Amino acid sequence: MASKDGFSWTKAQGLKPGVPCIGAIEPPSNLTGTDSRFDVIVVGAGYCGLAAARDASLKVLLLEARDRIGGRSWSSNIDGYPYEMGGTWVYWGQPNVWREIARYGMQDELEISYDFSRGINKYLLAGAQGTQSFSHDEEDAMMASSLSKLANVDGFFGRKAIPFPHSGVLSPEARKYDHMSVADRIAEIKSDLTPNERLGVEAFVLLCSGGTLETTSFYEFLHWWALSGYSYEGCISYLVKYKFRGGQSSFAIRFFGEALSSGNLTYAFSRPVASIKDRGDGVQVTTRDEQTFEAARMISAIPLNVLSDVVFEPPFSPGRKTAAKIGHVNQTIKVHAEISDRDLRSFTGISYPHNGLIYGFGDGETPAGNTHVVAFGGKHNHFHPEDNIDHTIAAFQGFTPMNVERLVFHNWSRDEFAKGAWFFPAPGLLSTYLKDMRARQGNIIFACSDWALGWRSFIDGAIEEGARAAATVQGDLAGRAKI
Amino acid sequence: MASKDGFSWTKAQGLKPGVPCIGAIEPPSNLTGTDSRFDVIVVGAGYCGLAAARDASLKVLLLEARDRIGGRSWSSNIDGYPYEMGGTWVYWGQPNVWREIARYGMQDELEISYDFSRGINKYLLAGAQGTQSFSHDEEDAMMASSLSKLANVDGFFGRKAIPFPHSGVLSPEARKYDHMSVADRIAEIKSDLTPNERLGVEAFVLLCSGGTLETTSFYEFLHWWALSGYSYEGCISYLVKYKFRGGQSSFAIRFFGEALSSGNLTYAFSRPVASIKDRGDGVQVTTRDEQTFEAARMISAIPLNVLSDVVFEPPFSPGRKTAAKIGHVNQTIKVHAEISDRDLRSFTGISYPHNGLIYGFGDGETPAGNTHVVAFGGKHNHFHPEDNIDHTIAAFQGFTPMNVERLVFHNWSRDEFAKGAWFFPAPGLLSTYLKDMRARQGNIIFACSDWALGWRSFIDGAIEEGARAAATVQGDLAGRAKI
Repeated sequence: MASKDGFSWTKAQGLKPGVPCIGAIEPPSNLTGTDSRFDVIVVGAGYCGLAAARDASLKVLLLEARDRIGGRSWSSNIDGYPYEMGGTWVYWGQPNVWREIARYGMQDELEISYDFSRGINKYLLAGAQGTQSFSHDEEDAMMASSLSKLANVDGFFGRKAIPFPHSGVLSPEARKYDHMSVADRIAEIKSDLTPNERLGVEAFVLLCSGGTLETTSFYEFLHWWALSGYSYEGCISYLVKYKFRGGQSSFAIRFFGEALSSGNLTYAFSRPVASIKDRGDGVQVTTRDEQTFEAARMISAIPLNVLSDVVFEPPFSPGRKTAAKIGHVNQTIKVHAEISDRDLRSFTGISYPHNGLIYGFGDGETPAGNTHVVAFGGKHNHFHPEDNIDHTIAAFQGFTPMNVERLVFHNWSRDEFAKGAWFFPAPGLLSTYLKDMRARQGNIIFACSDWALGWRSFIDGAIEEGARAAATVQGDLAGRAKI
Repeated sequence: MASKDGFSWTKAQGLKPGVPCIGAIEPPSNLTGTDSRFDVIVVGAGYCGLAAARDASLKVLLLEARDRIGGRSWSSNIDGYPYEMGGTWVYWGQPNVWREIARYGMQDELEISYDFSRGINKYLLAGAQGTQSFSHDEEDAMMASSLSKLANVDGFFGRKAIPFPHSGVLSPEARKYDHMSVADRIAEIKSDLTPNERLGVEAFVLLCSGGTLETTSFYEFLHWWALSGYSYEGCISYLVKYKFRGGQSSFAIRFFGEALSSGNLTYAFSRPVASIKDRGDGVQVTTRDEQTFEAARMISAIPLNVLSDVVFEPPFSPGRKTAAKIGHVNQTIKVHAEISDRDLRSFTGISYPHNGLIYGFGDGETPAGNTHVVAFGGKHNHFHPEDNIDHTIAAFQGFTPMNVERLVFHNWSRDEFAKGAWFFPAPGLLSTYLKDMRARQGNIIFACSDWALGWRSFIDGAIEEGARAAATVQGDLAGRAKI
């Protein structure tokens, strides 16, 4: 199976759109001519929509614009090796995601991205003035020191400022930090940072936000920090360390398979939704190809940055409308390279502020024995990897010389069903609109990782929201006659 | 509502069995004369059984020996104040429990047990030679140092020895430590411990296991340590810090309420099961009052220490039979005291090795403005709190003089449906029998926190197991005609 999403490039084959994916669903639909009324219609088959569809225990129609499940988290298996096109890492401290991993008995299907036992076992800091080389212990010390300074707003490294990181309530202190950008915070502490610390902390924040320092809410960074246990070591464990040996799609497919086996699931892929109408006694969903479906309730798992592209009637509440118009700022570029330099398996690196790819590291070994390097850029020096392959390869070589044999990536910025990567807010968005984004409107429940309370932006937050939506619909329809 | 479980004592009223509980269910059953065949029978209405019954989405009969939900985790509200009779603390790093808290929107219903802002803000170490007094910072430093020495088997504080604490596989290294007791491990490191560190580390381990140092598997302690993020600070956060403002039963009742609202749940409390017979084509469950019920599948959420008290036919596999005969070692004594000494709200203390209650601390403020102290003992100097109230009060005064006005407790050792507190294994049990305890036999799924993979012994592990059991039964019955 293959998806139209994503790109791969090799010297021999050149640039090719579309990559293999076990999350591309065949047949693309199990609709029959007679299906038109459901208990609930779920729009979006990312983790949020999948969890909602699976957990609703009702007659569900799942509509998805793409040809595959997973939304912003999916993997492509190329020559037996999984490349993660979007959301990748999971951790047992992430409650919703780990609950599912345990439930599917996948606890032993994780592997560690890093392998610090090989070749060039170094941390490379490529600044405008040239490249410095450090041990990973020195890297850890430098990053722990600089991030602790960034987060230490209260003398307790953020513990007092954000004591309950999963809370639904933004405290006055949280709001204060949400109205600051990370650039504002760095201005406060810059005299306390060494040049290398400053380089490291800025690159790390941009790795998280995919925006610029000015458009990155300082609160949201603190929120990630608090969720990760208020330490750099925690950030590594939670954010970039453990991934599925079989790729994300090996996980997502379990949700879809389970939902399907219940006998309650009707689905249609490659079926973008054009408009959604809440008539009071039920919801009408019309696809771009002008099919209309009806249900008592509807769960929208449509991401914030594309929410305005669907016509809702009645229109959005003013808060949701404005939030959708503002959107989030994450324009992460994530590119995989298969390189023949086997010694680079153990490297980590920052290339900043001049380079297009800011953060990179050895992320695995391909079946050919080559090194797999993953690298991240964003709105800072933004580029489209498919537009100029030489430029993309040069951005990898911004870390250190390497011989690129293959590239694999998904351009989230040009993806019409995402218009960006994981949610990251500019200053003020959460303080002002989080409640509005989470609120239901009539028979429509809005569920998305973009406005989860805990691991917002993460797979975990998507499942949190899917579970919330399913429970809401079940609560609504309990005792009523169902379809 | 009240349960027959538990005891309360005041000078005015003396000792009284039974305490108020919002988890005591009225009416005690919704069985009708015509109900006798179900899709699945769940035996045990602790968190495991509740999660299984709720998640199965089938026609379920839930049978419970007690008059209340919650099993070994329940709370009594006395004069508007919740006393936790068993499992108490939860944390957002515990995946299964936090998934439920998020799903029920209870993220802001937690409070912190400690309040280090009051009166006698001290750590009291009452050894055989007298009482020493330290600041809480000194306490943290001493406990962090001593526990790190205990856990540092690999130069990485256990990170190399137990890299995946939720794994289903016990590595050869894990097995090695499982065949050691904590007494064995302390013998290895004793020359590296100061007298106070030794006192602290032994008391802390006994707080975890409720056994003796000789009967406490060193591996299982390491497992707790790894789950808690390999640090003393993590242990405090995960194990004894955050609890429900409304008590555990305010959480458990959500599971029961949801299961009931689905319309699929039939239940009967105060209905202990006598025998369970798997006939191949289904399971017959017979209660002590000689009613028989039938189902396609059965989920046993019966704890290890009382599993042998129910007659199973066909009999247990040899491994399960031996494991049930050996049982676990935790005979924790947990007693609450309401004391008029308001200054003790901020104390923590150890009283060891001479005292009956080993670990105690201020755990809240009652509506009368008094201090609530919770204290723990176990197999070491074991006693039954209800047998001699003067002895029980004297055990509290083993920490520091205090004026006890009320006692509240559940004697888990004499509880015929638990025969002990949370699961804690003696050396060798897990290495030899974990797989056997987890295995299904025919149509019977054995689910219990006692053999969970992750947070085994915890509420989290109970929900992990309940989810596993429900998914197993759903998988079995998918596609079949259900009741």
